[in-house]
Amino acid sequence: MQFSSPAGSLKPSYIREILSAASQPDMISMAGGLPASSLLPVDLIRTSCESLADHRELFQYGASRGYSPLITTLNKLYPEQNNPWLICNGSQQGIDLIARAFVNPGDGVVAEIPAYLGALQAFQLSGAQIYPLYHISEAGEAGSKPDLIQLESHFKTGKVKLFYAVPDFHNPTGKAWSEETRIRVSNLCRHYGVILIEDSPYRELRFSGEQCSSLTPLCPEVCISLKSFSKIGFPGIRLGAMSGPAEFIAIAERIKQATDLHTGLPQQALINALLNHPKYPDHLAHLRNSYRGRHQQLRSELIKQLGNQVQFERVEGGMFIWLKLTKGSGTNVAARALKHKLAVVPGAAFYPEGVIAEDSAIRLNFSNTEPTLIPEAVSRLANSLESSS
Amino acid sequence: MQFSSPAGSLKPSYIREILSAASQPDMISMAGGLPASSLLPVDLIRTSCESLADHRELFQYGASRGYSPLITTLNKLYPEQNNPWLICNGSQQGIDLIARAFVNPGDGVVAEIPAYLGALQAFQLSGAQIYPLYHISEAGEAGSKPDLIQLESHFKTGKVKLFYAVPDFHNPTGKAWSEETRIRVSNLCRHYGVILIEDSPYRELRFSGEQCSSLTPLCPEVCISLKSFSKIGFPGIRLGAMSGPAEFIAIAERIKQATDLHTGLPQQALINALLNHPKYPDHLAHLRNSYRGRHQQLRSELIKQLGNQVQFERVEGGMFIWLKLTKGSGTNVAARALKHKLAVVPGAAFYPEGVIAEDSAIRLNFSNTEPTLIPEAVSRLANSLESSS
Repeated sequence: MQFSSPAGSLKPSYIREILSAASQPDMISMAGGLPASSLLPVDLIRTSCESLADHRELFQYGASRGYSPLITTLNKLYPEQNNPWLICNGSQQGIDLIARAFVNPGDGVVAEIPAYLGALQAFQLSGAQIYPLYHISEAGEAGSKPDLIQLESHFKTGKVKLFYAVPDFHNPTGKAWSEETRIRVSNLCRHYGVILIEDSPYRELRFSGEQCSSLTPLCPEVCISLKSFSKIGFPGIRLGAMSGPAEFIAIAERIKQATDLHTGLPQQALINALLNHPKYPDHLAHLRNSYRGRHQQLRSELIKQLGNQVQFERVEGGMFIWLKLTKGSGTNVAARALKHKLAVVPGAAFYPEGVIAEDSAIRLNFSNTEPTLIPEAVSRLANSLESSS
Repeated sequence: MQFSSPAGSLKPSYIREILSAASQPDMISMAGGLPASSLLPVDLIRTSCESLADHRELFQYGASRGYSPLITTLNKLYPEQNNPWLICNGSQQGIDLIARAFVNPGDGVVAEIPAYLGALQAFQLSGAQIYPLYHISEAGEAGSKPDLIQLESHFKTGKVKLFYAVPDFHNPTGKAWSEETRIRVSNLCRHYGVILIEDSPYRELRFSGEQCSSLTPLCPEVCISLKSFSKIGFPGIRLGAMSGPAEFIAIAERIKQATDLHTGLPQQALINALLNHPKYPDHLAHLRNSYRGRHQQLRSELIKQLGNQVQFERVEGGMFIWLKLTKGSGTNVAARALKHKLAVVPGAAFYPEGVIAEDSAIRLNFSNTEPTLIPEAVSRLANSLESSS
């Protein structure tokens, strides 16, 4: 084969493929991780769009590190980071830059399983070996949490360079780490010298419960934090940022130079305008309220229409419900759902190669489905379950 | 060291570094490959900028392959490509995607030396071994051309996967290949099954002589062509495109998914508006005229002020003059020039590691310097030459 080894083994993203199917007419999509189209804050950047062409300097080459007014804004908005920033094309590029900066083929990367596929693909491209971290439920406690004994045993192999974590409303499970878990994970990473990647695209989307600490202040010397403006701003612009220890950001910047020189300036200026708009906090509050409502409505419909055919936990933010089927295969349900004009992603799609996939769940997105469509979506799902076929 | 092997060996780009120095007040910069700021066609996209916020769909996630109206435009504009397209963040990302798609560590990549640094860095990140291709001058012919005997001997090793070529107004030398060279190179690539990368950011900037064939129609089954809108449109937006055989583009698309999902839609819509503007051909004609004038003026000043201290060829397009010093070191001249408030890049910066660098030239950019400043720029250069220090 003439392709490189990692490229040849890279599978197309199931989710990106299903998103094509999801654009068919009459399809209801709960497949992607898309924000609500009707809530995209385009009105908050309208003025900036209108005057964009007056800012000729935004159309000339810029600095690899990023547009400095945007960096100033990030420092103001996220004072807990207290580290240099590198602007990138979505947090996805941040993951890829980190993988290229740190991973030699065979190096270990721990990821909570099931995991965000895009991250697994980026690590796979660099030849990483994925060490799966599962969740456990303890007696007397609601919900589950990362198995920190397993995490430490991975670290003890001496082969793990990175721990890729989504502590706030994990994709695909929707779970958030407790404050205690954050402290214990941070301590383990410091102790074993493992770089902790905090990917937090959903952090600003908490709609109930208490906000916990960002990981960076808990272990600033080993933590790289990724911000995304795709879930709270505009995914179509492709903008994110990473912050971390200066020497890490410096090496990521060099790789960024070789990758695409820098992130485009007009798009950085537009995100900067959004973040500085006096109504930006209102936009975030409105987004949280809306997603709280959509989540609650989806919960109610799932309970009403599916009853004990499924199990799921209440999430406190983000975009996803992880729906466990008490019977049958998630892959089969997702395939049947497509015929009923409902797009969902089977849980098995979130397992890396070489790890046995559990095929008893599906991921439901609630952020992108208009509330009026949620009862019909769940009805189509009900028609797709094993017992109904 | 905790960094990955390629990342640890990646040097910062001399040019990106010098561009920081070049932004000092009173500095005249002939260092970068920047288009003229005064000629950026912002007026041609003003209306599109103004209505951007009305197009909500541009702010939601899009397809990895690219924004389909832009792809339709590219098919119309470049019918000779006749292959699928993948939109990327500048042609720099195209080079990086190709490197990741094809290069395993140790694989050979031929590049004309001296070469565009950004390309060398992308290949280096994938662990490529660079096979240098030099130019030769034949008796009775003006100028020089790639040494095709050397090229074939590289191909005969069986280790070369890619040939990275800039046939139109090469960076840094400004040279363009003859039609005969294009045909012979294409035949060699077909014969030896080497993938030919045609990087052509300057192709539309021919201001004298006859346009030659694009390489794609000469060897469509092995050629990947890279287009950039940084030199004829807006570098700040970061937009380019690649076209090539369907299976190559499919694999590059998968890597693109893992890299940053897709190129941003608003920026694709703006470039699409530029390319479809009725005045776009006039803009290109004006750009060529202006650069013809700047090149001619720089030539005249170099001859007048530097006389036989330098040698250089007349170029027929692009942005650069490759100035050979009859005496002294390019590195020293560039360092002294900075003190005289003139930024230029020493020729030695365009040689990959492991190849002996010739330090007897500097690269002069003529596209970004306003005509009124050219005499003063050359005067500063004159004061920086060895004999004057």
